[in-house]
Amino acid sequence: MNKLKVESLARKNIQKLKPYQAKEISCKIKLDANESPFAVKISDFISEINIPLNRYPDPEAIVLRKALSKKIKLSYENIMLGNGSDELIYYLILTFGGPVLYPVPTFAMYGIIAQSVGVEAIECKLDKDFDIDDEKFLKLVKLKKPRLIFLSSPNNPTGNTFSTDKILKIIEFAQKNSSIVVIDEAYQPFSSEKGFLPFLKDYENLLILRTLSKIGFAGLRLGYLIGKKEFLHEINKVRLPYNIDSITQYVATEALNKFYPQIKKFISEIIKERQRVYKRLLKIKKLKVYPSEANFILLKLKNSKEVYKKLLKAGILVRDLSSMIDNALRVTIGTKEENEEFLKALETILEEKG
Amino acid sequence: MNKLKVESLARKNIQKLKPYQAKEISCKIKLDANESPFAVKISDFISEINIPLNRYPDPEAIVLRKALSKKIKLSYENIMLGNGSDELIYYLILTFGGPVLYPVPTFAMYGIIAQSVGVEAIECKLDKDFDIDDEKFLKLVKLKKPRLIFLSSPNNPTGNTFSTDKILKIIEFAQKNSSIVVIDEAYQPFSSEKGFLPFLKDYENLLILRTLSKIGFAGLRLGYLIGKKEFLHEINKVRLPYNIDSITQYVATEALNKFYPQIKKFISEIIKERQRVYKRLLKIKKLKVYPSEANFILLKLKNSKEVYKKLLKAGILVRDLSSMIDNALRVTIGTKEENEEFLKALETILEEKG
Repeated sequence: MNKLKVESLARKNIQKLKPYQAKEISCKIKLDANESPFAVKISDFISEINIPLNRYPDPEAIVLRKALSKKIKLSYENIMLGNGSDELIYYLILTFGGPVLYPVPTFAMYGIIAQSVGVEAIECKLDKDFDIDDEKFLKLVKLKKPRLIFLSSPNNPTGNTFSTDKILKIIEFAQKNSSIVVIDEAYQPFSSEKGFLPFLKDYENLLILRTLSKIGFAGLRLGYLIGKKEFLHEINKVRLPYNIDSITQYVATEALNKFYPQIKKFISEIIKERQRVYKRLLKIKKLKVYPSEANFILLKLKNSKEVYKKLLKAGILVRDLSSMIDNALRVTIGTKEENEEFLKALETILEEKG
Repeated sequence: MNKLKVESLARKNIQKLKPYQAKEISCKIKLDANESPFAVKISDFISEINIPLNRYPDPEAIVLRKALSKKIKLSYENIMLGNGSDELIYYLILTFGGPVLYPVPTFAMYGIIAQSVGVEAIECKLDKDFDIDDEKFLKLVKLKKPRLIFLSSPNNPTGNTFSTDKILKIIEFAQKNSSIVVIDEAYQPFSSEKGFLPFLKDYENLLILRTLSKIGFAGLRLGYLIGKKEFLHEINKVRLPYNIDSITQYVATEALNKFYPQIKKFISEIIKERQRVYKRLLKIKKLKVYPSEANFILLKLKNSKEVYKKLLKAGILVRDLSSMIDNALRVTIGTKEENEEFLKALETILEEKG
C-alpha cells in the first residue's frame, strides 16, 4: 500500500478535490481574510472562565442559542449552531444532498464541500455587475432541480448584495421546484440593506446563515443557521452532538450579552472606513473599484499579481483573487491607520508603474 | 412545503436516521458520560488568555500538534486534529467511503456517521466475552471489502480491550483487501496494555484515534488522528480549514505543556478507583460485573431499568444500555466519594429487591 495506493483508496470525488487554501502568511498588516481589525480579547468582557473542562458541553447549547435569539428576535428553536458556518454548510449538504447550485464567483466552500460530500455542484456565472443573471439562474433551477441553492449576499469576494427582487424571484421559483434556498449573510452586518430575516415567515424553503467571524470573533468559530423548526430538526440529525465546545458557548454568550454595544461600534467604524477608503480608491487612476456592502473592497487593476507582491513587500497582505477574477485583488477594511498605509503603498506602487 | 414535505426533501438515509442521544439530565452525581470526575478549570494552568479573537485560528494548528507530538513521540505531521474524534470519524468516512465495518456493541457514532454520509454500515457481533469473533469478522472483510474498519479498544461500552492477536490478524487481512483499520483508543490511557502506536510503523493501513475527552477535557472538544502522512494528506482535503478554534488550540497546548503531570495523576487515581469499585461490585450478589480497561464498568443485573431509575432518584446518573445490551448499565468511575455513594445506593437498591 504505497503512496499511489493510498490516494486510490479515497473516493473518486476526494481524489480530485482541491482543498481550501488557508495559508498563513505572516505580515505586519493583515487585510486578506475579512477579519475585524479591532483586537478583541476575552478579558475585554470576561473576568474569569470557571467552566469545568472535564464535562461535555451542553449538546443543545441552550444558553448561547437564547442569547442569539434575543438579538435576531426569533425563538432559539429557529437557531442551529455550527463550528463556523462552514460546518453548517457540511450539514446542509449532508442532509439534503445535491445538486447544489450557486452563482460564481462566490465563497469557495460551497463547491468544495459539495465535492467532499460527493454531490453535483452547479455554477452560474454572475452578470457583469456581479448581480445574479436571473434568467440563466432560473433556467438552471428548472433544468437541474437543485436540492440546495446558496446565495452569499453581500457576496464574497465581489462585495455587492444581489438585488432583492431577483433573490425573491429565485426563492419563489425554487419553492415550486422543491429547492431550498440558503442565503449566506456572513457580511450582512456591514450592509445598508436589511437582509432576509424579515422574509423567513413568508417562505417555507428559506434558510439564513450567519456568523460571528466577520464581526470580531473569527477565532471562536461560531456560525448559525436560522430557519423553520422542521428544517432544523432534519439537519440536526447529522450534527455532531457536542459540536460547540464549552468555552466557545460561554465566551460567545458573554460577548452577546455584555459586549454587543462595542461590537456594533466596531461595525459602524468599519462601515465608515469602507466608505472613506472607497472614495480614496476612486481617485486613484489605473484602478477599477467596486462598491461594497461588506467589510472588504474588490479592486481590478493591471498586473494584479505584481501589485499583490509589492504590497506584501511593503508589509501589507491582501487577497489575490486572480484565480477567480482576472486581475482582481480583495482588500479587507482595517483600522484607519492600516487603511492609510495600504492606500499610500498602493498609490506609490501604481505611480511607480508610470 | 409542509412538515411532511420538509422530511421528504432530506436524503433517504437521513429520513431514517436516529441521531445520537445526548440528553442533559441534571443530577448530583454524574457517572453517565465517561467524563473525568476531577474538575479542571482554565485557571489551574493558565493565568490569562491573550488570544486576539478577531483573527482566524491557525488552520494548521502547528503549535498544538507539536505539543501532542512530544507526548506520543511521533512527528506532528503524523497528527491531524478534530473537533472531538467525532469530527475525525466524519472525515474518515467522507474520504474513504464505505462499507464501514465494526463489531457491536460499540461506540454508536460509527454507525450514525456512516448513515449520515450515506454509506453501508456492517455490524459484526462480539463473542460472549465481548472479544472480536475473528472468524466471522475476517469473513465479512473478505466478503464485503469494507473501506474502513473501526475497532474501539478498550471498547465502549463493554470496557475490555480486544485481544491484540486478533486485532493484528484483522489489520493484516484488511491490508490484503485494501481495507483501512482505525483503532479508536479513546480509553487507552486507562488500559494496562500499550495500545497500537508501536505498530504504526509496521502497517500501512493502520490509523489510530485518540482524544482528550476522557482524560479531563471533554469540554474542549479535541480528538486526534495518528497515521501515515500520505493518509492524513487525503483526509485533510475534507477537513474544514479552521476546525479547531483559537482558544481550544491555546488551552490544549498549555494543558499538555504545563498540566500533564496532573493529568497523569488523575488517570492513575481513576484506574485505582476502578479496581477498588470492581472488587466491591464483585461482592454484590445478583450482579454480573465485567472487568474493565477503561474509565467505566459494565454491569448486568435483573430489571436494570428499574435500578437505573432508583439510582437516579438517589441522585446518581449512570448509563442505561438496555437498548444495546440486555439488562446492562454502564457506570463511569467518579471520585472516591462519588463511587462510595454509588456503591451504597446500589447495595441498598438490590437488598430492597430481596
